[in-house]
Amino acid sequence: MHSYSIGVDLGGTNLRVASYAPEQGFLRTIRIPTRRTAGRDEVIKDLCEAIESLRSELRGNGLGAGIGIATPGPMELPEGRLLDPPNLPGWEYFQLRCQLEQRLGDVVVVENDANAAAFAEWKLGSGKDLAVDSLCMLTLGTGVGCGVVLRGEIWHGMCGMAGEAGHISVDPDGPMCSCGTRGCLELFVSATGLVRMGRDLVQKGAGRRLSELVKDNPAFTSADLFSLGIEGDPDATAIFSMAGKMLGRSLAALVNVLNLPAYVLGGGAARGWPLFAPFLFEELTANSSLYRLSSPAQEPSDRLTRSRTQVVPARLGADSGLVGACLLPLSPPEERSPVRAGPVPR
Amino acid sequence: MHSYSIGVDLGGTNLRVASYAPEQGFLRTIRIPTRRTAGRDEVIKDLCEAIESLRSELRGNGLGAGIGIATPGPMELPEGRLLDPPNLPGWEYFQLRCQLEQRLGDVVVVENDANAAAFAEWKLGSGKDLAVDSLCMLTLGTGVGCGVVLRGEIWHGMCGMAGEAGHISVDPDGPMCSCGTRGCLELFVSATGLVRMGRDLVQKGAGRRLSELVKDNPAFTSADLFSLGIEGDPDATAIFSMAGKMLGRSLAALVNVLNLPAYVLGGGAARGWPLFAPFLFEELTANSSLYRLSSPAQEPSDRLTRSRTQVVPARLGADSGLVGACLLPLSPPEERSPVRAGPVPR
Repeated sequence: MHSYSIGVDLGGTNLRVASYAPEQGFLRTIRIPTRRTAGRDEVIKDLCEAIESLRSELRGNGLGAGIGIATPGPMELPEGRLLDPPNLPGWEYFQLRCQLEQRLGDVVVVENDANAAAFAEWKLGSGKDLAVDSLCMLTLGTGVGCGVVLRGEIWHGMCGMAGEAGHISVDPDGPMCSCGTRGCLELFVSATGLVRMGRDLVQKGAGRRLSELVKDNPAFTSADLFSLGIEGDPDATAIFSMAGKMLGRSLAALVNVLNLPAYVLGGGAARGWPLFAPFLFEELTANSSLYRLSSPAQEPSDRLTRSRTQVVPARLGADSGLVGACLLPLSPPEERSPVRAGPVPR
Repeated sequence: MHSYSIGVDLGGTNLRVASYAPEQGFLRTIRIPTRRTAGRDEVIKDLCEAIESLRSELRGNGLGAGIGIATPGPMELPEGRLLDPPNLPGWEYFQLRCQLEQRLGDVVVVENDANAAAFAEWKLGSGKDLAVDSLCMLTLGTGVGCGVVLRGEIWHGMCGMAGEAGHISVDPDGPMCSCGTRGCLELFVSATGLVRMGRDLVQKGAGRRLSELVKDNPAFTSADLFSLGIEGDPDATAIFSMAGKMLGRSLAALVNVLNLPAYVLGGGAARGWPLFAPFLFEELTANSSLYRLSSPAQEPSDRLTRSRTQVVPARLGADSGLVGACLLPLSPPEERSPVRAGPVPR
């Protein structure tokens, strides 16, 4: 029985490293900026130093389970080989897991940050509240991540790339996404996407308040748009209604294909829930007969007899990726180890 | 060890019942029309009589594994409770599995026909050729069915409704589908959808050959459109290019979310492959960065190291649903029994 683990949330802006014990939660957390401009090797050095510091504190406190790393994709799992992570320029094709295992002399589990967040939310957040064995979580942050837990295991697909719902095209004639596809969900519902829609609306001729925000504060954020929206500004509410519509459209596809009991929305931009949720549910209802069949609005005779499809906000907040990173080394291998589809001996 | 099984493909037009042995394949097949207008009870009587006839032939030939029934959805599994199957009017809320087990005194496994086809295609068709443990199959028939096999098990989701990819909306401003959603994939790529597009094109002003086909032969089929297309008729090729585009768009979403090694296209309308495939691959490439990453067209350094995402035609033909129905009772419970997501004791 392991008594603790160390988790890392390696983001493009922040590097967070925590020690964690199953009964107590976080023991100590180190938060430092990711020194992106200093280069990959410096960031790895910072990361290893933080881990060493936490490990030395824990010496004599039982057996460590290893180190979990949550980091943005795309990457190949279980190798933990980064491809071309847009938030970590210069890390192309870096063998993250292999390099860290060599440096740290310990078990390292590398996971996509959206998968880690989904795993944490399933184990300790809204998935626990709803008592479900499966869920799909969308993380509305700088980009849009997505993680799928099927019967208690992260679904990785063939090479760890499953759950790329942020890059489902919801508007084939829409703007080009950095991934090379037009009209990805991410362009409409990420924090960056909301800001982009704000700028676009001002260019097309928006009302006074949004125009002033964009002019006076070029570095405005989705939180500023949310404040405007909550005060009833029609431009800001239009932006969130578009986000809700696109979320509803993507969720309809996910509901139809996966038929899971729960879909969870997390990440910073999910704070827009009060503004986008009505439009999300309207579009989801219009676009998924399965969602309609499981809705309590249906006559009982026309309804599925078992529990319904639920769409709920996440509960663990901004730490879900870090919690997931800590949980992974502590979890039984069948939960944490990349469950892969692929070639099999027949 | 069971020596045989009986499978049923209960469609809206045809009822096919077969005895099957693992080493030999089909032993005998009974094909009769589904007497829809005679009503549900008459069809059940026909079905049970055919099963009895096959069973009596097999008496003394070892142990039967039970009966597999493939039938169009929507239905709840594992209960085998039909909801409102559009191809079987009057069967609403019929407890198919329970009723048949009582009448036949044997184990009955009810399965969605698209799932049964996917299972057969995985076990004996293109999934076997490609040696993969997981695949997603779209069946382009009167409607569009979809079945997902994940690591050797049919993925049922919460209540057997997973894999409803035929009702992903690919054109939110498109025509209304019978399921109540606008612009479902089924409207563009099913046999019925191709015919609908043919009629629409004539109304909007098509060329001579398509106009004549629709006028002279009001009961024309997708096979007629295919013949026109193969001869180079621009209207028919435009219809198949639209079908390919919509298939590519839906497959992009499936590839991004599931990251499976293989996607298989079957059903009668999949015979249009030579006409729609180029447009399918163009749209799939444009809409899925994951597909692009796994494409052999990429530079090796930019590519995923493991095997690529393959989209291939099905291999078992029109019998895949019936083969699946026969295979299900013979398969180990973990493969055939509805794998469900849902509430769990925690």
